[in-house]
Amino acid sequence: MKKIKVTVWNEYLHELQSEEIAAIYPEGIHGCIAGFLQAAGMETRTATLRQVDNGLPQDVLDATDVLVWWGHIAHGEVDDATVERVYRRVQQGMGLIVLHSGHASKIMHRLMGTDTVELKWRESSDKEILWCVMPSHPIAAGLPDEKIVLEEEETYGEPFGIPTPDELVFISWFSGGEVFRSGCCYYRGLGRIFYFKPGHETFPVYHDKAIQQVITNAVRWAAPSQHPPTVTGHVPEAWV
Amino acid sequence: MKKIKVTVWNEYLHELQSEEIAAIYPEGIHGCIAGFLQAAGMETRTATLRQVDNGLPQDVLDATDVLVWWGHIAHGEVDDATVERVYRRVQQGMGLIVLHSGHASKIMHRLMGTDTVELKWRESSDKEILWCVMPSHPIAAGLPDEKIVLEEEETYGEPFGIPTPDELVFISWFSGGEVFRSGCCYYRGLGRIFYFKPGHETFPVYHDKAIQQVITNAVRWAAPSQHPPTVTGHVPEAWV
Amino acid sequence: MKKIKVTVWNEYLHELQSEEIAAIYPEGIHGCIAGFLQAAGMETRTATLRQVDNGLPQDVLDATDVLVWWGHIAHGEVDDATVERVYRRVQQGMGLIVLHSGHASKIMHRLMGTDTVELKWRESSDKEILWCVMPSHPIAAGLPDEKIVLEEEETYGEPFGIPTPDELVFISWFSGGEVFRSGCCYYRGLGRIFYFKPGHETFPVYHDKAIQQVITNAVRWAAPSQHPPTVTGHVPEAWV
Amino acid sequence: MKKIKVTVWNEYLHELQSEEIAAIYPEGIHGCIAGFLQAAGMETRTATLRQVDNGLPQDVLDATDVLVWWGHIAHGEVDDATVERVYRRVQQGMGLIVLHSGHASKIMHRLMGTDTVELKWRESSDKEILWCVMPSHPIAAGLPDEKIVLEEEETYGEPFGIPTPDELVFISWFSGGEVFRSGCCYYRGLGRIFYFKPGHETFPVYHDKAIQQVITNAVRWAAPSQHPPTVTGHVPEAWV
Repeated sequence: MKKIKVTVWNEYLHELQSEEIAAIYPEGIHGCIAGFLQAAGMETRTATLRQVDNGLPQDVLDATDVLVWWGHIAHGEVDDATVERVYRRVQQGMGLIVLHSGHASKIMHRLMGTDTVELKWRESSDKEILWCVMPSHPIAAGLPDEKIVLEEEETYGEPFGIPTPDELVFISWFSGGEVFRSGCCYYRGLGRIFYFKPGHETFPVYHDKAIQQVITNAVRWAAPSQHPPTVTGHVPEAWV
Repeated sequence: MKKIKVTVWNEYLHELQSEEIAAIYPEGIHGCIAGFLQAAGMETRTATLRQVDNGLPQDVLDATDVLVWWGHIAHGEVDDATVERVYRRVQQGMGLIVLHSGHASKIMHRLMGTDTVELKWRESSDKEILWCVMPSHPIAAGLPDEKIVLEEEETYGEPFGIPTPDELVFISWFSGGEVFRSGCCYYRGLGRIFYFKPGHETFPVYHDKAIQQVITNAVRWAAPSQHPPTVTGHVPEAWV
Repeated sequence: MKKIKVTVWNEYLHELQSEEIAAIYPEGIHGCIAGFLQAAGMETRTATLRQVDNGLPQDVLDATDVLVWWGHIAHGEVDDATVERVYRRVQQGMGLIVLHSGHASKIMHRLMGTDTVELKWRESSDKEILWCVMPSHPIAAGLPDEKIVLEEEETYGEPFGIPTPDELVFISWFSGGEVFRSGCCYYRGLGRIFYFKPGHETFPVYHDKAIQQVITNAVRWAAPSQHPPTVTGHVPEAWV
Repeated sequence: MKKIKVTVWNEYLHELQSEEIAAIYPEGIHGCIAGFLQAAGMETRTATLRQVDNGLPQDVLDATDVLVWWGHIAHGEVDDATVERVYRRVQQGMGLIVLHSGHASKIMHRLMGTDTVELKWRESSDKEILWCVMPSHPIAAGLPDEKIVLEEEETYGEPFGIPTPDELVFISWFSGGEVFRSGCCYYRGLGRIFYFKPGHETFPVYHDKAIQQVITNAVRWAAPSQHPPTVTGHVPEAWV
C-alpha cells in the first residue's frame, strides 16, 4: 500500500517566542506531530507560516494527501492566496485536519461558511475529558478507553460557530462547567475535514498517546479515496 | 389557529409509592406537565400505565397531535399492543416527546432501532448544565439563557445508545465528569420525535420555567404539519 | 402575530434584455415573487442588482427577516461588501432563500464552503418532476401532491457541489436522465438557508401554485426565531 | 491484513422456483455475490432461509464481520429469533449490507425504526441510472464512472420509508419518472449498515462489474473497526 503523504503546517511562532513552549516542543509542534505520523508509517513533511508562500506552494499541496493545520496568533498573516490554494486542494480531495485554535483560521472559516472563531475560551488549566460519542467511527479505532483525560488544557465552550458536523466523534467536558463539540467531521467537495480541539501550546498535549492515535486515525480517514470521474458544466446531450 | 392536542402519559407509580415524590408532584408528573402545556394554550389530557389499554386506546391516540412520555420502573408493563399503536401513530405523523428515563421504554427502542437503554447513570445529585448548541432551533426559542442549570439531577453519561440525532439541540455537563446528548430530534415516518433528558422523579425539574419552555417548544415543533398526500405500493403506470 | 418582513432580491437583467422574459414576468421575477408572498400575509419589499449598494444597504438588511435571492448572469457584479453584509445578517439569524441559478452566487459559495457553481446543466426544455422525499417537513406543508411537475425547465444534474444538506426535502427527476437535490436546507450561524432549484427565466415557473407554496413555506421556515442570548469570547470565570 | 469474514444470506427461493432466474444465477444470488467478494480477497460463506436457524446460528454470526442480506417473497419466514440474533450482532459491530427487496425485511424494519416496506414499485423493465452524489465516499471508490446504468431493472420510487440516511451515496433515476435514494448508509450501535437498491432477481444485476464494486466497497466500509471499550449502566463513582 502506498504511504499517505502528510504535510504538517504550523504557525511556528510560540516555540520561538517562549522558552517554556520550546521546552515542550523542541522541534516545534509540527516536528512533534510529523514525528508520530512518520512513526505510524506515513510520509511526512512540514511547512511553516513564514516560509515563502507560507510553506505551501502549489507543488507542495499537489503532493499532499492530507494537510494538518496548527495556527493561533497569526491567522491574519496567512496569505489569501495560500488560503485559496488550500481551499482548492480540499475541493479536489485533499484531507485537512484542523487542530485547536486553527478553528479561527481563514481556511476554517472559508470551508465552513460560518464564524468558526466564535466559542468561549479560558486559560485556566481546567481538566478536559474528551468523551467518544461514536465509538464505531474509524477516528476512534484502537483507543484504549472511551475517554481521553487531559489534566490541564485550555477551556473551549459552546456555542461553537460551526455548521452541524457531518459526524460528531468527541464531546469534551471541562471542569469549569463547559461542554464542547471537540471532534467534528465534515465533507467539502471531494475532501474530508476533521476538526480536533486539543492542543494548547503550553501543555504537552501532542505527546499524549491517545491524542496521537486520534490524529493518526484522522489522517487515515481523511486520505483521498479513488473517486469516480465526474462531469460538471454544460452537458448538451441527454443521457437517455 | 387550532389548539394542539397533547396527551401526557405517565407511568404514575413513583408518586403513589413515595410520599417525597408525591410532595413534589401532587397531581403526578403528568398533571404537572399537562398543567403548563394547558397554560401555554394547548388542549391537554393525561393517561397512565395502569388504565385500560395503558390509557392509550386507539381513539385517544387518533385524537392526539403530540404524545408526551414519562416512564421509569415499569417499561415492561406497557403492552406490546400499546407500543404498536403508538408506533403506528408516529409513522402517521403524531409527535412524540420522550422524557428522561423514557429512553429505556419499548417505544423508544422501537423507533430508534438501537439499544437506547444503554447509557451511564448515577443518582448522586450532581449538578447538570444543559448547554444549547443550536440556538436557532425552534425548541430553544424564547429561552432566557443559553444554558439551563439544574442544581441537582440524576447523572446520565455517554455513550448513549442512540442513532446520530437528526438535530442535536442540547448537550449536558455533569459535575461528576460526564457529558450527555440531552436534547435530540428525530424524524420517523411522518412523525417528529424529541428526546429530552431532564426529569428525575426526586427533583422538582418540571417546575423549572426553562425546562417547561423547552417542553412547550418541543410540543409545538413536533405537532403534525399538513403533509402532502403520498402514494406507496404498486404503481402500475409510469408518470411520463 | 407580527408579519414576516421579506426582501426579494433579483438581478433584474433578463427581464430588461428580453421581451419574451418580460412577457412572462412583467413586474420582474422579484415582482412576481413579492406578489405571492404579500398575498400570503407577508410584508415585502424588492431590491435589485443595479440599485445603490445592490439594493441591500445595511438598514434594508437590518429590517429583513428573510431574503429571497435570484441571480444568474451577473453574479460578479454583486459587490463583495454586499456579500459581506448578507453573510453577516445570516449569521445573526436572517433567513435566506436561494433560487435556481443563485446556486452560483457569491453568497451561496460563501455560506456553503464549497464550489456550489458545480453541477450539470442543459437548456433543452426537459420535463422536471420534483419528488418530495420528506413529506413531514414544514416546507412541504399544504402541497396538493407529493410531486411537482414542471413540463419544461432547465435541467440541472448531479454531482452538485454542495455540502450534505442538513435536511433534503426535494429530489428532481429530469427527462434527459439526470437527478438533482433540488430542495436543500442548511443551518449557518443563527440563520436558516433553503436552496430551491426551479425558476429558469424563460419558463413561467414562479406562476406555478405549488412552487409558490414551497417558497412561501420556506420563508416561514427560515424566519428567525427568538433565540436565547449567547456568549462567546473570553469567559474569565468558571460556571461552577 | 486479516481477511474480512463475510456471510452472504439469501432467501434462495426464486432460483429454485424459476428456470429463468436459475439460469441467471446458477449458484444462487448468494453464490454469485460470495464469488466476487471472495475474488476481492474476502473470506466468504453463504447461508439460506430454509437451513436450520435460517442458516444463521449464533456461532455463524459470531464469526461474521459483515452480513449481506437478500430476501424478497418470504420475509415472514425469517424467525424472530434470527432477527434478534442479527440485530444483536449489528449493535455489537457487525456490518450489514441490505440489498434490493431486503428493504422490506424484518431486520431492516427493526434497525431503522420506520416502515421501510413503504416505497413505490413497478416491474416494467425501466432503465435505472444510479448517480453518485457523494463521489468522495469510500463506497464509490474505484468506480469507472459517476453513474451506473442498468438497462432493465425493477422501478422503486419515493417516498421511501426510511429515516434520513447518515450518508446518501446514490440517487437513482428511472425512465418511468421516479427517483429513489438507492445507496444509504446508517450507523446503529457499533454497526454500520448500507442499503443498496439494485438487484431484482429477473435481471443479471449482480453480474455487473460496477455493482460488484459498490458491494465490495460497502463490505469494506461496514467491516468493524477496533472500537474503544465502553462502559454503560450504573457507574457509582464520579470521574473527577
